[in-house]
Amino acid sequence: MPVKGFKFSAVEAAVKKPGRLDLGLIFSEVPAVAAGVFTTNKVKAAPVVLGIERIKDGLCQAIVVNSGNANACTGIRGMDDARETSRLVAEGLGIADEVVQVASTGVIGQVLPMERLRAAVPKLVEGLESGSLDGVSRAIMTTDTFAKMEIRQCEAAGVPYTIAGIAKGAGMIMPNMATMLAFIVTDAAVEQSWLKKVFSESNDASFNIISVDGDTSTNDTSLILANGMAGNPTIREGTGDAETFRSQLQAVLLALAQQIVRDGEGATKFVEISIKGAQSVADAKKAAMAVANSSLVKTAFFGQDANWGRILAAVGYSGAEVDADRIELFFDDVQMVRNGVFTGGNAEEKGSEVLKRKEFAVTVDLKLGQGEATVYTSDLSYEYVKINADYRT
Amino acid sequence: MPVKGFKFSAVEAAVKKPGRLDLGLIFSEVPAVAAGVFTTNKVKAAPVVLGIERIKDGLCQAIVVNSGNANACTGIRGMDDARETSRLVAEGLGIADEVVQVASTGVIGQVLPMERLRAAVPKLVEGLESGSLDGVSRAIMTTDTFAKMEIRQCEAAGVPYTIAGIAKGAGMIMPNMATMLAFIVTDAAVEQSWLKKVFSESNDASFNIISVDGDTSTNDTSLILANGMAGNPTIREGTGDAETFRSQLQAVLLALAQQIVRDGEGATKFVEISIKGAQSVADAKKAAMAVANSSLVKTAFFGQDANWGRILAAVGYSGAEVDADRIELFFDDVQMVRNGVFTGGNAEEKGSEVLKRKEFAVTVDLKLGQGEATVYTSDLSYEYVKINADYRT
Repeated sequence: MPVKGFKFSAVEAAVKKPGRLDLGLIFSEVPAVAAGVFTTNKVKAAPVVLGIERIKDGLCQAIVVNSGNANACTGIRGMDDARETSRLVAEGLGIADEVVQVASTGVIGQVLPMERLRAAVPKLVEGLESGSLDGVSRAIMTTDTFAKMEIRQCEAAGVPYTIAGIAKGAGMIMPNMATMLAFIVTDAAVEQSWLKKVFSESNDASFNIISVDGDTSTNDTSLILANGMAGNPTIREGTGDAETFRSQLQAVLLALAQQIVRDGEGATKFVEISIKGAQSVADAKKAAMAVANSSLVKTAFFGQDANWGRILAAVGYSGAEVDADRIELFFDDVQMVRNGVFTGGNAEEKGSEVLKRKEFAVTVDLKLGQGEATVYTSDLSYEYVKINADYRT
Repeated sequence: MPVKGFKFSAVEAAVKKPGRLDLGLIFSEVPAVAAGVFTTNKVKAAPVVLGIERIKDGLCQAIVVNSGNANACTGIRGMDDARETSRLVAEGLGIADEVVQVASTGVIGQVLPMERLRAAVPKLVEGLESGSLDGVSRAIMTTDTFAKMEIRQCEAAGVPYTIAGIAKGAGMIMPNMATMLAFIVTDAAVEQSWLKKVFSESNDASFNIISVDGDTSTNDTSLILANGMAGNPTIREGTGDAETFRSQLQAVLLALAQQIVRDGEGATKFVEISIKGAQSVADAKKAAMAVANSSLVKTAFFGQDANWGRILAAVGYSGAEVDADRIELFFDDVQMVRNGVFTGGNAEEKGSEVLKRKEFAVTVDLKLGQGEATVYTSDLSYEYVKINADYRT
């Protein structure tokens, strides 16, 4: 993993059932410029409360993350546990406590098994010598069925650098917010104030345009560390290098976001919902999200049923301005609706063929203006119900 | 059925598969004072567009309703069909077209089989001689597994009268709106302006506090007809008789609303979600609805998993003011959370026992103020997915 100055480690700490990695560490040899985006949920997990406070300095040197336990709704004890985890890692690495970020994901409301974490941290720190980002990507999985990673190689002023990211998703995926865990590392040197801005924008255009089940978690955290070890001149706002960085960062985040939807709990379909012709971008987003979050639409996707009526109904209650007599709707390139009514002919047959695809696009043109928005979603299957009915057992 | 001056009829018109009643008629021998509440969805079915226009006069003498086809997203043809249905019924009954209300429920986007309706209307009118409200309640069923009816006997100035209501629900159940079909008939004489007001309020306190799947349909219609044939002095606002009428009407609507939740598509649980101690009633409603609509909460109910963490997460993203460190949560009388953390001890075991019940209450006390709200919801089961994946097939 050619991201200069970063080391990685992942171990089994027995937070989850034995046999699975559940504790990961990302370490930069030098303090990195950092930015973070956290859940908007008012019930915030202890590590999120700690992380929001610490990211204000714009510096981070290590991220320690566990899966299997969210350390949420754990009160003062949870805050103490998050702080102790941070301190153990800081001491092991010989760095300041304040530049450690802690993240957790898993069941809400149970206290962390601190004795096991205390025992595991020394192994975790030792593991940095031989670890990989891939290992960390596996250690943060909960109901994910595959690890999510994306890497881009770029240049700034002729100096090569790398942006690498990992994420976990699966359930509780919904704006507003990062809505999962995502950790991005880059060896590029980047101006902190601009990094904060571009990272926030890139999250909006990636993790905030996906939806699996409409639930916003207590633990969503998206962090980026830029340690400058590539040796490039610092990337600053308004330059060509900044544009390259922005587009590549956004590509990494969007790829991770799309992987999260593809691995949505029980997902059998990957669906792009595009709204065009809305009176405003805000209206387009509302309409796209209403479609993406409709249980009736999502079960129809699962059933491979070209039930465009449910999509129009969702657009109709989304709050967006709608003239029912002007709407057009397409499944991929098959037009199902024109002026608000079924196009007829063999559209039903052709539309049904599209719905059988593993990936397809639903495009709704409201014919009212220039507002556009795209979101990505999955279907709602038996398996989603099974996973979430049995999650804690 | 002792609702004086009302007659009922239900027939098979072959809109649905053969063997099931799918066309119903409610007829008052005299024009009745009427009020209606309709879907807020901007994509409105043709009969809803017609109904909103006609109810403005505050008079209605007949309601014709079909199941199996929503007559939604059917454009000009759909409007013509709704108008023709009305005209056929008006001619058959020998009444004015303007006092007929038309309602439809079923698949969106298909045109009504008008030749079959034309053939069925004469039979429908003949059937008034021997029909019952029970028959109409069966004719409006779609995925409902039982017919929904509620009847109350009351008195005004010593004169007995009756309020009887029927409803259909099952899927697409969500405020804001009546969110289904409901037809209420009473032989009481009631002042029209007040009837409109009290009916709207009663809908808010019944059909607008239930949620099955968070989808608002294109066809939701709730109508009341008061024909005065009981012979009571007209019930007017501000009197004791008005209070009696209000409370009995609300009881009828709430009973129907609760029947709809009990019969939610695939529902195995009936859950009362109560929020207390919110900063405002609006906050309490937001929080209650967020819990009632969370797929993660609903699948946990299905799995009989006392996963209170998901409920706190839903409250946290609801938009209501929340202090995570003050929340209390109960499953029936078992306290699971105090000051935002798990109460411990044998609460898990006792909470799990509650979740095994077919009906139970979730109470969340935010400890911030006096705002309270209650909503009723069901769980999210395999069967919900099955019903909605296969609905059109």
